[in-house]
Amino acid sequence: MPELGDLPEADFRRLLHEVADWIADYRAGIERRRISPALEPNAIRDSLPTAPPESAVPLDEILRDFDRLIMPGIVHWGHPAFLGYFATTTNAPGIIGEMLAAALNVSAMTWQTSPAATELEFVILDWMRQMLGLPADFRGVVYDTASVAVLHALAAAREDLGFGVRQDGLAGRAGVPQFTVYASDQAHSSIEKAAITLGLGEANVRRVPSDDEYRMDVRALQHAIAEDRRALRHPLAVVATVGTTSATSVDPVDSIADICREQKLWLHIDAAYGGAMALLEEGRYVMHGVERADSVVFNPHKWLFVPLDFSALYVRRPEKLRRVFSLVPEYLRGDAERAGEDIPNYMDYGIQLGRRFRALKAWFVIRSFGREGMAARIRETCRLARLVATWIEADARFELLAPVVMGVVCFRARTPGHDRGDGISDLRFDELNERLLARVNATGAAYLTHTRLRGRLALRIAVGNVLTTERHIAGVWELVRDQLSTVSADEPRDGLA
Amino acid sequence: MPELGDLPEADFRRLLHEVADWIADYRAGIERRRISPALEPNAIRDSLPTAPPESAVPLDEILRDFDRLIMPGIVHWGHPAFLGYFATTTNAPGIIGEMLAAALNVSAMTWQTSPAATELEFVILDWMRQMLGLPADFRGVVYDTASVAVLHALAAAREDLGFGVRQDGLAGRAGVPQFTVYASDQAHSSIEKAAITLGLGEANVRRVPSDDEYRMDVRALQHAIAEDRRALRHPLAVVATVGTTSATSVDPVDSIADICREQKLWLHIDAAYGGAMALLEEGRYVMHGVERADSVVFNPHKWLFVPLDFSALYVRRPEKLRRVFSLVPEYLRGDAERAGEDIPNYMDYGIQLGRRFRALKAWFVIRSFGREGMAARIRETCRLARLVATWIEADARFELLAPVVMGVVCFRARTPGHDRGDGISDLRFDELNERLLARVNATGAAYLTHTRLRGRLALRIAVGNVLTTERHIAGVWELVRDQLSTVSADEPRDGLA
Repeated sequence: MPELGDLPEADFRRLLHEVADWIADYRAGIERRRISPALEPNAIRDSLPTAPPESAVPLDEILRDFDRLIMPGIVHWGHPAFLGYFATTTNAPGIIGEMLAAALNVSAMTWQTSPAATELEFVILDWMRQMLGLPADFRGVVYDTASVAVLHALAAAREDLGFGVRQDGLAGRAGVPQFTVYASDQAHSSIEKAAITLGLGEANVRRVPSDDEYRMDVRALQHAIAEDRRALRHPLAVVATVGTTSATSVDPVDSIADICREQKLWLHIDAAYGGAMALLEEGRYVMHGVERADSVVFNPHKWLFVPLDFSALYVRRPEKLRRVFSLVPEYLRGDAERAGEDIPNYMDYGIQLGRRFRALKAWFVIRSFGREGMAARIRETCRLARLVATWIEADARFELLAPVVMGVVCFRARTPGHDRGDGISDLRFDELNERLLARVNATGAAYLTHTRLRGRLALRIAVGNVLTTERHIAGVWELVRDQLSTVSADEPRDGLA
Repeated sequence: MPELGDLPEADFRRLLHEVADWIADYRAGIERRRISPALEPNAIRDSLPTAPPESAVPLDEILRDFDRLIMPGIVHWGHPAFLGYFATTTNAPGIIGEMLAAALNVSAMTWQTSPAATELEFVILDWMRQMLGLPADFRGVVYDTASVAVLHALAAAREDLGFGVRQDGLAGRAGVPQFTVYASDQAHSSIEKAAITLGLGEANVRRVPSDDEYRMDVRALQHAIAEDRRALRHPLAVVATVGTTSATSVDPVDSIADICREQKLWLHIDAAYGGAMALLEEGRYVMHGVERADSVVFNPHKWLFVPLDFSALYVRRPEKLRRVFSLVPEYLRGDAERAGEDIPNYMDYGIQLGRRFRALKAWFVIRSFGREGMAARIRETCRLARLVATWIEADARFELLAPVVMGVVCFRARTPGHDRGDGISDLRFDELNERLLARVNATGAAYLTHTRLRGRLALRIAVGNVLTTERHIAGVWELVRDQLSTVSADEPRDGLA
């Protein structure tokens, strides 16, 4: 007969210690690993049984299989030369926080389901609010991702117009116009996903052009709003970004806030990445005007050293969020009533009911590093990014494609002599940089990603990992230069002409 | 100057071992803890600083504070006498899986961002599909919660009608009618949350009456659909539940599927809790007809022993989900193209971009217990629930309020002599049971929750924790009976008349 219950204590304890050593070894030796595997799609899948195991497998064997079958397919996001996407980073306090949260496995639906989970979330969110420099009337809620956060923010905006959308929806109603949302051409794709989900329509998201430094063009915004009003559409919200995904540019929030006030539009700030700059005295300027927003999203799992996932949405009038999403079923009614007036039941502020105890890891990270220590690490990130930028500017075979504002550097290789001024150059450079990127990543010694800026393929170096030092950055830069030599040598001089 | 980098290896290793022991001790001693704290709201919050710490705090101190300040406010969901909500449960393999996922901290956005994370998710979802008995053309995706899953399912249904909602939205469009969604009066409140979010409107969710055993009344469903058609509304989808939240009742899925086929409605099945019954030969009947659905949600974090959070949405035609949510920004475009045809980039199937490596913990749990071991534990849950039901039936001071179908027992105390047949009884019984519930939970030795069935307050015993044995259930039952004596004794005989 198969066993019931859980693993016997002695076995579990022994395995926990084994895993503790595995984690310590992994972190200590991560630098010696190949960052990304050279794997064909389905290699991992083909190594696993197609049907679930009938009988129990000893955990020792599963741990061996984890090393043997799973680890070869892992991209080591924690490697100090992993510089892709936004370097979401983990660290000792983050891992310990996650371990304890996993052991507790509580759900922070209501205050009642675990008072400490709700109250710590409340405290942590307020600590972060202070670090962001937001006024005290902003109240937060933790979601998993910024995509879910902007969905909630725009839902609150949609309700706030007074058309009774929560109750009666958007469809088949005379007098309910099309609503439009504005964001720069550099803003995150989650805005379209939110508009799709909310029934606003992807086509009703206006991508406003950005200037030379990839910041929203405020006149173009005004123009777009006016055009929509003339067409009897109803402008709903502007999403301004503090730290865009491609080049970490910062929209002119204060001017946008002026327009939003004048036009009565909801102002949502995507500071998911860039909000961390507010911890630096010299970085605080990026948040200028953000205090005038209706909602702000900030992702501590991006640049505040909290492991995935943790996204904080701040709303100036939290009751506006509650008005859309509070819906208490009977089996949770008592819980909801029991919470103090000033302690929210977080399930009332969103779609999700089941909520992991995410505040715990954040508490570990913030206290372990201290505000000062987090600021020092953020400052070092910026320094390293600027350092790479100076190297790029000093090498005629490369060019920067955007100003370096935070921890991200956008650049490309442009072999001298290939710039023919006939429009073909950019196409050639795209191919060159695609090949360069593939070669760099294929070495396993660095991991970069790319983006596109004004149609041109840009390579990205995104610093942010607490393990990344100048030595790593220098190594990656040397690798990029070395690999460029091999790409250039391969390539027929006028292959594309 | 504040330090950079992460904790030194030796310190981290020592702390990991300390935490390993903490977790082993916690699990081994959980039974001796008070389940829920006797705390006033804000007690935890008031014990924490209102501002973030300026300087770094040693992790040893944070761990001590965790024990001193946070643990007193935790409800111990893993306690064997925690029988509230659905007993989401953790266990040794689940905790170890979470620990390793935290150390890796990869994001499973695309195949490229960690091939093993995507491919293991694919394999685990297919294992679960087989365990649920769903046909091979159902493909899954992992979200955090069933609330998010039903949102995605109804978004796919909305798009599937051909009105071009993704592109143009729902508002201000001639010819786009109001859409209606149907679910029983016992279905989960997440359906309303989804309808609100999607712009369908809360008022367009029809709560169809249920029968004596809390199963959707199919004639009433037909009637509701016909009425909406007459009013020129557009019936969109039916949500049928396999294992409702209050009483784990099972809707007549096969008859509902007939109606959906005839009426061309999307059929979504909420098997978040009840799907686990499919692992039992004697439980498979609950999934009868589910193979005819368009989408099915199943939460391994409810009754398949996977820690919070993990919700699997299965869609028969996954391209319908992709058609709503695929939106690949440039900085992820290469990744998206590189994945093999048969390996999805899961970010294309949902709102969320950042995605934790949730498949890992599920792999640990499923292999560690085996299909057989999971079935044995699910079977034992059902046996314990039926056992409590026999005790309730044998005691004249209590009555069952719903059939015991799965692992949940709904009952109430009804002190003999109080049933006066004048309608006042139920009110009195509600008060009696509310007091009883409060007293039971106040002992800290058991944790029950309540619901309301046909207007009557019902106490719920939800079995499901792998640590819960007959001894615990017997202890809780004795406690309930003891506490009832004290409530009855206190209460003036005709206080409410």
